[in-house]
Amino acid sequence: MKQTERTKDIDLTPLLNPKSVAVIGASRDPDKVGHVILQNYIDAGYSGKLFPVNNKTDTILGLRTYKSILDIKEKVDLAVIALPAPIVPQILEECGKAGVKSAVVVSGGFAEVGNVDLQNRIVEIAKKYRIAMLGPNCLGVMDPRTRIDTLFLPTYKLNRPKVGGVSFVSQSGAVGSTILDLISKEGFGLAKFISYGNAAYIDEVDILNYLMKDKDTKVIVMYIEGINRGKEFIEVAKKVTKIKPIIVIKAGATEMGAAAAHSHTAALAGNHEVYEAAFRQFGFSIAKDLSELLYYAKIFDSENLPEGNRVAIITNGGGTGVLTTDAVYESGLTLTQLSDETKNELKKYMPPIVNIRLPLDLAGDADKERFEKAVDIVSKDPNVDMLIVITLFQTPGADSSVAAALIHKKENMEKPMIVISPGGDYTQMQKIMMESGGLPVYDSPMAATKSLYELYRYAQYKKNA
Amino acid sequence: MKQTERTKDIDLTPLLNPKSVAVIGASRDPDKVGHVILQNYIDAGYSGKLFPVNNKTDTILGLRTYKSILDIKEKVDLAVIALPAPIVPQILEECGKAGVKSAVVVSGGFAEVGNVDLQNRIVEIAKKYRIAMLGPNCLGVMDPRTRIDTLFLPTYKLNRPKVGGVSFVSQSGAVGSTILDLISKEGFGLAKFISYGNAAYIDEVDILNYLMKDKDTKVIVMYIEGINRGKEFIEVAKKVTKIKPIIVIKAGATEMGAAAAHSHTAALAGNHEVYEAAFRQFGFSIAKDLSELLYYAKIFDSENLPEGNRVAIITNGGGTGVLTTDAVYESGLTLTQLSDETKNELKKYMPPIVNIRLPLDLAGDADKERFEKAVDIVSKDPNVDMLIVITLFQTPGADSSVAAALIHKKENMEKPMIVISPGGDYTQMQKIMMESGGLPVYDSPMAATKSLYELYRYAQYKKNA
Repeated sequence: MKQTERTKDIDLTPLLNPKSVAVIGASRDPDKVGHVILQNYIDAGYSGKLFPVNNKTDTILGLRTYKSILDIKEKVDLAVIALPAPIVPQILEECGKAGVKSAVVVSGGFAEVGNVDLQNRIVEIAKKYRIAMLGPNCLGVMDPRTRIDTLFLPTYKLNRPKVGGVSFVSQSGAVGSTILDLISKEGFGLAKFISYGNAAYIDEVDILNYLMKDKDTKVIVMYIEGINRGKEFIEVAKKVTKIKPIIVIKAGATEMGAAAAHSHTAALAGNHEVYEAAFRQFGFSIAKDLSELLYYAKIFDSENLPEGNRVAIITNGGGTGVLTTDAVYESGLTLTQLSDETKNELKKYMPPIVNIRLPLDLAGDADKERFEKAVDIVSKDPNVDMLIVITLFQTPGADSSVAAALIHKKENMEKPMIVISPGGDYTQMQKIMMESGGLPVYDSPMAATKSLYELYRYAQYKKNA
Repeated sequence: MKQTERTKDIDLTPLLNPKSVAVIGASRDPDKVGHVILQNYIDAGYSGKLFPVNNKTDTILGLRTYKSILDIKEKVDLAVIALPAPIVPQILEECGKAGVKSAVVVSGGFAEVGNVDLQNRIVEIAKKYRIAMLGPNCLGVMDPRTRIDTLFLPTYKLNRPKVGGVSFVSQSGAVGSTILDLISKEGFGLAKFISYGNAAYIDEVDILNYLMKDKDTKVIVMYIEGINRGKEFIEVAKKVTKIKPIIVIKAGATEMGAAAAHSHTAALAGNHEVYEAAFRQFGFSIAKDLSELLYYAKIFDSENLPEGNRVAIITNGGGTGVLTTDAVYESGLTLTQLSDETKNELKKYMPPIVNIRLPLDLAGDADKERFEKAVDIVSKDPNVDMLIVITLFQTPGADSSVAAALIHKKENMEKPMIVISPGGDYTQMQKIMMESGGLPVYDSPMAATKSLYELYRYAQYKKNA
């Protein structure tokens, strides 16, 4: 949908850091969206003022209820609106009169089902009263630092991620909630979550402008179906990627996918090739799948940028070392040559069974000391830009002391170092430990090497930008 | 390494279904391989006779110990040898004299470290005494039905998969153990596991011959570094894929990977393009990564072959529906057109919010009844060859009753049906339930559609073979 002209960008601060929040459509019924939202605010420990608005009851979840936003005598920074679409214009008008600074319209039933006029009406109201309006047809926002959480999904079904550096921007609520849940599963942390739905007013451009300056945001991840203001988007994206990486997954890459996207959020997917070319030109990481998006976010969140593309592989499993060597080359990286000094050092400390060449196969009985020494020596080699440590916890030698040793090594290392550890329950325990310690862990060679390649590619882009 | 000429293939039956097993190099020290192997036999509940062989002690783990294999008066079907390489020839010679039918040589230190002569010696001994010898430098075999388990890896580090239809053949012990662990994590079952290491005697050809006839094996998965007898391999593979699918992951796809493979199991990786062309010609599924290998194994294990490549998508998340539509086309499948009859039926039962088109977006409040009805109606459409059901358990409507309903629908369905459910703890619980119920669940659209494509591709191959 083409947006009306705008003279300036919208500030998202009242949306993401409000001192007071009204939930309009708050409900006593635990199955209602307006109940779950209120409950989540309480559960999250939101420290600002919370005003439930409902014209049929006096208290909800122990909080005094207001008949209308106009009855609240205090200043409201954010109104979360969870009411049927037809009454949203009237509610938003009242918000305007009450001086509310920002609003999240959770409700669906607008342009995505053909009600374009209704959507245009709320945009006009938002403009008239200068309300920073997000949505409609969206999940809203989440910020684990300010404990803002407008999501109407209960925490037992959707784990909330911990505090971190990844900001995630999603047009789709479903994709957004899935990825939030996956982010918490993968163990990395969130800066901001913004689900903007139909993008009727606040859109990708406003959001990028905000996140560019947001000091908590280290990497921006976007799920996009269509872009309202293509030219402005490219302008701001170009500025952003000079500072921090953007990872994008663009739905509607195929003709049929584009048609499905239109039916979903009324997005005009536009020419995918044009988008992709622009994304590439401005240094974006393009994820082809949800899993790639997570892999890339994880590495950008925890790693420094590498100097070059020369990788060293250290492994306690020969076959996985071979597969990873293949994956290194297939991803556009290269296996480095160890310097003679490194080789001599390794010979001093490695048992005779260890062949001093890359991939460095430490053998199945490799323990903490062997891993530690190998990582120590190899990481200091000037020929090494990045390290992959394959730790197969099924082997006799590897246990949690290896995981702990790798975390310690990582703490004092400038170069990117990642771990490949595929496996079941025992391995998953080690993985959780290593990821909590800031070490990205991957389940497969390709996932690891593609992620390292993206890190390298962005480093090169930034150097030349 | 080029194998000496052979007149006939080796029978693997005594290896995989032995009535009696000797563990040569059994040890009282829990850190020793020979201890772990014995312990695992006891833990697995192996019902045959078990003979620890150790010349320094009288009992191990409560079992009477024999000084030498020659001291055992009963017939031994399988000897597991876990002793240093230099004494293996003597031990194997004794096994021959004792009439042992098969042997697993776990020990490393042969061709993979340059000791080609030592390896040739044990092959000559195996031939002389007609011992079906597996290895050296291997993990050996596992069969959850006969409870044979020669793996020297403790069960707390490596979960053993349940009984099922996937046979997994691995040259590399490390890759083998990792995949076993991943198979048990993914919840599908194992027929046979064979890790053959240096392939000095028993090789891929013998193993394929055996698994072709094995009634428990529904799908064969292979990790290959190099192939000894290329011509014979192709001959047998051609016969196998007419009956059951083979999924292969070939290490050494790149020049550097091939060099690493040679250093690992002394395998001559050969010309990768030649292999790949042959694999394609004979209907193999070629996995590019460990994760693809698992995805493909899972779908072949639990699904019938489809009639065609027309997919229907049912979803409770619009964005994920769009991404999956893209993935369908990118994988070489096509989104089908629903028949008018199907559309009319759906209109009767779906609420107005549901747009009657594919991907069929049931909306975020879709519950058990809506999913059930949609799957029921859509699966009966003659235009539908395969079903993808996207169930996002983060949404308000989806809970374990949806998972249970999908399992029931699947039980009575001839057509392949798979589920996409990415997410954290709550989703993982539903996933475990659905997979136990025979429904393959994928974490991402691409993983799902690539797997469906492999199923379709093999169905076409088999039809024309």
